[in-house]
Amino acid sequence: MSENNHTVWHNGYLTMGKRNRLNQHDSGVIWFTGLSASGKSTIAHLIEKRLFNDGIRAYVFDGDNIRHGLNSNLGFSTEDRKENIRRIVEVAKLFVDAGVIVLTAFITPLKEQREFIRDRFKGIKFIEVYVKCCIQECLKRDPKGLYKKAQEEIISNYTGISSPYDIPENPNLVIDTEKLSIEESVSAVLDYIGETDFLGLKKYHTLKT
Amino acid sequence: MSENNHTVWHNGYLTMGKRNRLNQHDSGVIWFTGLSASGKSTIAHLIEKRLFNDGIRAYVFDGDNIRHGLNSNLGFSTEDRKENIRRIVEVAKLFVDAGVIVLTAFITPLKEQREFIRDRFKGIKFIEVYVKCCIQECLKRDPKGLYKKAQEEIISNYTGISSPYDIPENPNLVIDTEKLSIEESVSAVLDYIGETDFLGLKKYHTLKT
Repeated sequence: MSENNHTVWHNGYLTMGKRNRLNQHDSGVIWFTGLSASGKSTIAHLIEKRLFNDGIRAYVFDGDNIRHGLNSNLGFSTEDRKENIRRIVEVAKLFVDAGVIVLTAFITPLKEQREFIRDRFKGIKFIEVYVKCCIQECLKRDPKGLYKKAQEEIISNYTGISSPYDIPENPNLVIDTEKLSIEESVSAVLDYIGETDFLGLKKYHTLKT
Repeated sequence: MSENNHTVWHNGYLTMGKRNRLNQHDSGVIWFTGLSASGKSTIAHLIEKRLFNDGIRAYVFDGDNIRHGLNSNLGFSTEDRKENIRRIVEVAKLFVDAGVIVLTAFITPLKEQREFIRDRFKGIKFIEVYVKCCIQECLKRDPKGLYKKAQEEIISNYTGISSPYDIPENPNLVIDTEKLSIEESVSAVLDYIGETDFLGLKKYHTLKT
């Protein structure tokens, strides 16, 4: 196994494009941003399921699988929140390279963070979805009782209570979960995906025929 | 969107098993360990390609895509090497959950690291492949000139020179790249995968017929 041999063999490795062709759809990122309890994770998981039923490889990153695993050694300091997002972005890039549609469900409260994210995905299909819901409604929903704890100052730096959420200025899509049901929210995202041919299905269909 | 609604909709989400059925193969980890220049990455990439040609979703993690992205903020201290491996393991778990065969090409020099890894993949299909090649031969190959730099002490803590490599005691497979050509090495791993039905193909074939 000479050095030259190494070099020769390294040519022709797999690319995202080849993986996309195997899957018959493009890969990319759908980044959901919004307050806790706005509905990000629920919507993302339902879209994942709907896509899966159509044979589309999709995968949700959310607090459940990221905060308990890869980012279990990070807290909620400014520094740690930055590193949290950085790692998520890097893993998402690997998934996209592997041919998967990544759906992320993280609050991503700061304009600065979202600009960093968009910048890191340059050259990759990317949609920012703002899951809109006012803080009063989120407080009412409070499925995990965390807003209550934040109000009682048991939890500090909680987005919407003791930490800011910058309203997205130019999201690709706004889903208002105070006005839309879950079903309607999911359909709105899927409609957008379809209208923009985010999955590149037309291309693969053309190739087939 | 009531709290109850949230709970209801969270049921029935996708599982690894469902993704495996879509792909028609199991997911799991093939962890290559061995000295730098032993041939880990070359072999892993060729297996990835061979599997891909058979419609198997596989993905290589190596220094190129991990050290420059997710783990770009880690150095080579004991602490950082530990964190390097921990993150790779966590990302591999996400890929396996997403239905992908993960092939890792990292030196993984310490017995302790490899025990940690095996333990973290309990309940997941896992193979440890020791890519065997003596240090003298690796020094001769030295495709990136790093051994030379390590000998000249320009690089410190280099595995095999100034940092230990614990010979694996119970690898699932040993690939001796001093005796086998690249082609033979790749075939040996693929044969092992086939013989042990690592991809679970028999199961899916049975389901089909």
